[in-house]
Amino acid sequence: MRIMGIDPGIAIVGFGLIDKQGSRLVPVQYGCIQTEAHTDSALRLKMVYDSMVQLIDTYKPDAVAIEKLFFNRNVTTAMSVSQARGVLLLAAVQKGLELGEYTPLQVKQAIVGYGKAEKKQVQEMVRMFLRLSAVPKPDDVADALAVAICHAHSSAMQQKINEVHKR
Amino acid sequence: MRIMGIDPGIAIVGFGLIDKQGSRLVPVQYGCIQTEAHTDSALRLKMVYDSMVQLIDTYKPDAVAIEKLFFNRNVTTAMSVSQARGVLLLAAVQKGLELGEYTPLQVKQAIVGYGKAEKKQVQEMVRMFLRLSAVPKPDDVADALAVAICHAHSSAMQQKINEVHKR
Repeated sequence: MRIMGIDPGIAIVGFGLIDKQGSRLVPVQYGCIQTEAHTDSALRLKMVYDSMVQLIDTYKPDAVAIEKLFFNRNVTTAMSVSQARGVLLLAAVQKGLELGEYTPLQVKQAIVGYGKAEKKQVQEMVRMFLRLSAVPKPDDVADALAVAICHAHSSAMQQKINEVHKR
Repeated sequence: MRIMGIDPGIAIVGFGLIDKQGSRLVPVQYGCIQTEAHTDSALRLKMVYDSMVQLIDTYKPDAVAIEKLFFNRNVTTAMSVSQARGVLLLAAVQKGLELGEYTPLQVKQAIVGYGKAEKKQVQEMVRMFLRLSAVPKPDDVADALAVAICHAHSSAMQQKINEVHKR
């Protein structure tokens, strides 16, 4: 199963594709979509959408896992990122992909084991899970891989629950 | 010139199409896109996007005018509406349409003449501008027509400024 993790944004969208081979997680490709600050916001949304469609067409993930936003400070930023999140979700649903949405708390719990883990701890665990030589940069890329791993663990957990129910 | 006004939302998106014939504004079609509350949020975004594309293909507007969100209370609502706003903007920019974005304050100023006008005053002015027998319901539809009229006035103003500059 191939999972595409997404850390949504308008200036920078982190993405991370991993393959779940049994209990092993193998990195496929990761990086980020970037848009220029001086460009019109509607055009930036189109760039984000077009890049997302292209990534899906190229890497053919089975599932998309995307961070739920958690904002209590800057509403303007929250609205701008949400617009981008809207077009990212649209691309995934148009392609008929399985969709997982996780809060930062859920991601931390899935990766480190507790919700108050620091960013660096999460990134180091991502590096170890995927046997990478270094933490991927920028943070958005590491965050995208983290949410992909979170989905892999959650779907593995769900599968076990289903198996128990079948007995 | 045909203008499509949009009042963005996820449960209900108001739309209003008007033709600007010289100084006269003629209503073409208005109504709303609605999505079911119990449906998955990504599917609701797809419904909003698909309906928007269909409306553009049917009525072929030259410009889309959309309300800018102004929120200081519920961030969750702001984020949900922003996701819908993202896919609405995407549809407009994909079709290469002229795009106008206006705050509620700008809309009120354009329609009634001052920014602290009450909702009912704005709606009554919309009814008069478009020579309608009654205020369109629900409020989202009247709001969409208001932002379309705002864009008609703004582009008329811009045209006059350009003419003065040419002299």
